[in-house]
Amino acid sequence: MEYSPGLRGVIAGETSISTVGKEGTSLRYRGYDATELTKNNSYEEVASLIINDSLNGDQFKESFKKYYLESISDKRLTYYLEDLKKHPVPYGMHPMDVLRTVVSASYQSEEVSNIEAVAKISAVVCYSIASYFNSETDELDDNYLVASSLLPNSSSMQMLEALDDMLILYAEHGFNASTFATRVTASTRADLIGSIVSGISTLKGELHGGANERAVELINSFKSLTEAENGVKEMLSQKKKIMGFGHGVYKVQDPRSPIVKAWVEKLAIEDSSKNRFEIAKRIDEIMDEEKKLFPNVDFYGGLLLAELGFEIDLFTPIFVAGRSVGWAAHYFEQREQDTLIRPAAKYIGPQER
Amino acid sequence: MEYSPGLRGVIAGETSISTVGKEGTSLRYRGYDATELTKNNSYEEVASLIINDSLNGDQFKESFKKYYLESISDKRLTYYLEDLKKHPVPYGMHPMDVLRTVVSASYQSEEVSNIEAVAKISAVVCYSIASYFNSETDELDDNYLVASSLLPNSSSMQMLEALDDMLILYAEHGFNASTFATRVTASTRADLIGSIVSGISTLKGELHGGANERAVELINSFKSLTEAENGVKEMLSQKKKIMGFGHGVYKVQDPRSPIVKAWVEKLAIEDSSKNRFEIAKRIDEIMDEEKKLFPNVDFYGGLLLAELGFEIDLFTPIFVAGRSVGWAAHYFEQREQDTLIRPAAKYIGPQER
Repeated sequence: MEYSPGLRGVIAGETSISTVGKEGTSLRYRGYDATELTKNNSYEEVASLIINDSLNGDQFKESFKKYYLESISDKRLTYYLEDLKKHPVPYGMHPMDVLRTVVSASYQSEEVSNIEAVAKISAVVCYSIASYFNSETDELDDNYLVASSLLPNSSSMQMLEALDDMLILYAEHGFNASTFATRVTASTRADLIGSIVSGISTLKGELHGGANERAVELINSFKSLTEAENGVKEMLSQKKKIMGFGHGVYKVQDPRSPIVKAWVEKLAIEDSSKNRFEIAKRIDEIMDEEKKLFPNVDFYGGLLLAELGFEIDLFTPIFVAGRSVGWAAHYFEQREQDTLIRPAAKYIGPQER
Repeated sequence: MEYSPGLRGVIAGETSISTVGKEGTSLRYRGYDATELTKNNSYEEVASLIINDSLNGDQFKESFKKYYLESISDKRLTYYLEDLKKHPVPYGMHPMDVLRTVVSASYQSEEVSNIEAVAKISAVVCYSIASYFNSETDELDDNYLVASSLLPNSSSMQMLEALDDMLILYAEHGFNASTFATRVTASTRADLIGSIVSGISTLKGELHGGANERAVELINSFKSLTEAENGVKEMLSQKKKIMGFGHGVYKVQDPRSPIVKAWVEKLAIEDSSKNRFEIAKRIDEIMDEEKKLFPNVDFYGGLLLAELGFEIDLFTPIFVAGRSVGWAAHYFEQREQDTLIRPAAKYIGPQER
């Protein structure tokens, strides 16, 4: 029996939400070019487009604000987060494990609209990230609601704009592994929260959301251009995988990468940041020369999040803050299609005994 | 583009763990007939077979006991369970939501062997189920360790044997939706806990684990044979789905059903139980006459769990207690194969705008 490992190229369902990698490079949300959306729209508007096919972000904003403020005074949520913070050892959970747990516990008792349900999950995710690291993030900026909930109150307008763009580019990406896991969960008629929890669990892996962490760790491991050049060539000669390059679906370029790279360039003002950006660009050049590979969103994406002041462990949680709307849109679509996802397997184990 | 909705019949990977539905009816775990295993082996031995390809259950038993006893005195676990119990409204979470949350929080700090890691998850699941309903379940029976952790101390040997068989039959079932979700999560190199959490999230849906709840609710809704006969025929004429019949993979018979049915017959001693069993058998006959459909494990399975004293909301959690070893085996297999699962999608949405 022939089959395609990892279901590569196998159509697993129909979707109206996005197209990824047409002509090897484009990303479109419900027909709109995602890179254009970063120029003209806020994350909240794009979230509304992805969920409701409308660029009017008012209802999402209103609900997000309501639930975010509720989160701050929600003793139960705080208590979960405190409990986890109180136990770095022996419990030492990764922030992604915390997020998975907190979202799993965030039962929605009232019947609400799809957009309100998504805004609540988004608010719980953002509040958890903000509170986990004890920044003062309670001042919300109405133009960059979600971004401002994640960044310290003192952040510049440029930082808010940069994070807003990053969240837009993280928002949705077709049948990637975490979104597909969300759809498999939804396909049994399971609930929205559980399906998002599957997405979070899946995004954690280093072949998916974790790639930006590995990319920054690599960049940070070099102190100079020469060190980076020698180090990366050495890794390539040992056939080690360099995280943050190439893409399973984009064959020409990852259209998100230039936008992210431009933001890193703008924000890298301090000498250490400039030096790090130069090292990253050198690695990028070597990967092009040696392997003809282009950077994907994770390579400069990790660097952008580092410039914005996030610790490495928070990169994938920020990805969750952006992607939760994509997962939710796929949840609603899958529930409407109401088709159980249950593939077959090729048995290669012991015969009857 | 042609595709198979729900990936039906599409091979999504290779496995050595089980075969489901060969010749339309058999179920084999690593080559052994699962129905034969219920006669000669305990759940703990079968769990070891599924994880480690060995019927020696000693290590699983030792670890399960250790972690179960630790759970009883684990303040943090108790605190999570208490917190959820204290808030029936407005938090009112389904026990499956509780289980998903508690397992998500059960970080394993030490490096342990695969079988120990699985035994810990199993112990946390069983302790959560037991404590959630406040039964006295602290006396463990060495021959039926897992079953005795779930049943009240006063349970008969026959009840332990019946639940042990049910757990064996729930233990593993190929690339069903929850196991497939577990594998998709594992495929990104995510962790064991997160992958099991995806399985739990997915099993909750009524097209999967939730089917036994619906089946018992249907049986309980009838008071007499005539009422059942008229009611089911009425539902069929309205083209309503009767849960617990037919199967996507078994085409001749679900081999688990006769074993489960025989246990219900043995345990149904009281008049009300006998009456309920007669009603179930009548529904079974009508489904055969009218639709040529056979009962799957969920139909009499729900009834067996009800005879064992479990409330309907606990049926799917019991399924988790059995299936967690199957999910874990697929997690380890998928990690070893190390292939990201990322299918393609057929776009049917708006064109460029």
